[in-house]
Amino acid sequence: MWVFLNDRFVREEDAVVSVFDHGFLYGDGVYETLRSYGSRIFMRDQHLARLRRSAESIGLTIPIPNAQWPDLLHEAMRRNEVGHDQADAYIRITVSRGAGEIGLDPSLCPHPTVVIMTKALHPPPPSLSRDGVSLTVAKTRRNLPEALSPQIKSTNFLNNILAKRESIAAGTFDSLLLNWQDELTECTVSNLFFIAGDTLHTPALDCGILDGITRTIVMIIAQEEGLPVREGHYYLSDLRGAKECFLTNTSMEIMPVTRVDAFVVGEGYPGPLTRRMQTRFAESRTRFLASDPS
Amino acid sequence: MWVFLNDRFVREEDAVVSVFDHGFLYGDGVYETLRSYGSRIFMRDQHLARLRRSAESIGLTIPIPNAQWPDLLHEAMRRNEVGHDQADAYIRITVSRGAGEIGLDPSLCPHPTVVIMTKALHPPPPSLSRDGVSLTVAKTRRNLPEALSPQIKSTNFLNNILAKRESIAAGTFDSLLLNWQDELTECTVSNLFFIAGDTLHTPALDCGILDGITRTIVMIIAQEEGLPVREGHYYLSDLRGAKECFLTNTSMEIMPVTRVDAFVVGEGYPGPLTRRMQTRFAESRTRFLASDPS
Repeated sequence: MWVFLNDRFVREEDAVVSVFDHGFLYGDGVYETLRSYGSRIFMRDQHLARLRRSAESIGLTIPIPNAQWPDLLHEAMRRNEVGHDQADAYIRITVSRGAGEIGLDPSLCPHPTVVIMTKALHPPPPSLSRDGVSLTVAKTRRNLPEALSPQIKSTNFLNNILAKRESIAAGTFDSLLLNWQDELTECTVSNLFFIAGDTLHTPALDCGILDGITRTIVMIIAQEEGLPVREGHYYLSDLRGAKECFLTNTSMEIMPVTRVDAFVVGEGYPGPLTRRMQTRFAESRTRFLASDPS
Repeated sequence: MWVFLNDRFVREEDAVVSVFDHGFLYGDGVYETLRSYGSRIFMRDQHLARLRRSAESIGLTIPIPNAQWPDLLHEAMRRNEVGHDQADAYIRITVSRGAGEIGLDPSLCPHPTVVIMTKALHPPPPSLSRDGVSLTVAKTRRNLPEALSPQIKSTNFLNNILAKRESIAAGTFDSLLLNWQDELTECTVSNLFFIAGDTLHTPALDCGILDGITRTIVMIIAQEEGLPVREGHYYLSDLRGAKECFLTNTSMEIMPVTRVDAFVVGEGYPGPLTRRMQTRFAESRTRFLASDPS
């Protein structure tokens, strides 16, 4: 595997950073994960814009100009023989503070570290997307937005890892996290939606969640479909009253949820509105890929 | 500089980890900082015990047996010619999850990464410890304990880095962080004490703070001195009523605080009880070093 590191492509075994990189010492960095459909990178500019927003939030300068990213990402796919009809690509961009003396002051690190990893995308098995998945409600609460906003896609990911460990222990697909005041937020790497009373509900950004790119697309599609969408503050009791529930993220798109701990969602299988959203998402993605030249 | 990396000492330039190390990708790791007085490592076993507690909290196994650490730390000091009468040593132990496939599941990483860094300790200039320092109250709130407990000394340090950036912008020594419900917690790398009504007050652990080793020593010394100690839930208004205030951590010991934003603490210089605690701490440390053979 080839990895882009700072200014060139290196072999995986040579893709190393100093132990003094503040990304390693402090998790002082930001990242994005993107995917391609064939050779086309989905919502590339939106992901790159969010990478810049995340970096700005922590006072980190991304040392690669906007205009160079498309070529770089495509070169990364080519090198690893992904991003073609037989292999959609998974892409992870990481930008850390770089190496410097031990200490919290970011100015100790003059040169940020840039890493681009690419590999074949392995979405969850189709059976999950057809039959739905189960969640557990984590004891771990989502990060307090005023401490470290979940809108910053940072390499401080222990909060999500602790929640993931709970879902592994519970034998469920993922964990659902509540916030500091018992409100629903999101799962470890995906946003949450549920349908109740013929409205599509999703936690508002100020509950402390990532403003997911797939989340935004799903909200737009739902409105186009005439399905009312509401961003709000919700509790587990609201989810228990839901007829349908699903998760969204870049690599798995729309994933139906059929169980949350002991509670069975709706009839225990993916409902008709979730199915419709999956179909509409696929159509929208096809239109997007046909129209966008990137 | 020599760095211990996994199983041997390497030169600083060879002290590198894979970009697939989950310490780099996710901040998935724990650490401790220790210091020596001359060749003697202060509270070594307490720091090593806390390292193990932090690791256990995130389900990480430290691959080096307890019995090997003392020799390893002393060898690290010897290699870098610190830890003697002319140079107290600063020591940082980092244990990360190690390299593995991208993903949150810790079992992707079979081999944790162990790093030991040592260098000459550079405590703050004596003038600060004599005259006191200023703080700013950060807009950044301390991590929610139920999201990522401040008692886990993890390499997820962006919360503290964001607060540190605020103090750098304000031109103060450090930032004081409040918790999710406006209570006083701690500074970016130190615990907080203040004196009001002839009692030494310090935020309780469940405010969301690190159970600092120097904090514990100071509480014991105060009780020996007949100074009542209270761990409690405090607000900025309590601090504004304080006669004296100081910070504690391993490398700076007891640091007087004389200003918090526009508010001047007491008379604006380190008070008599702070001075007495500094003296008693120095005496206690001398006794400790004389009695403990480590």
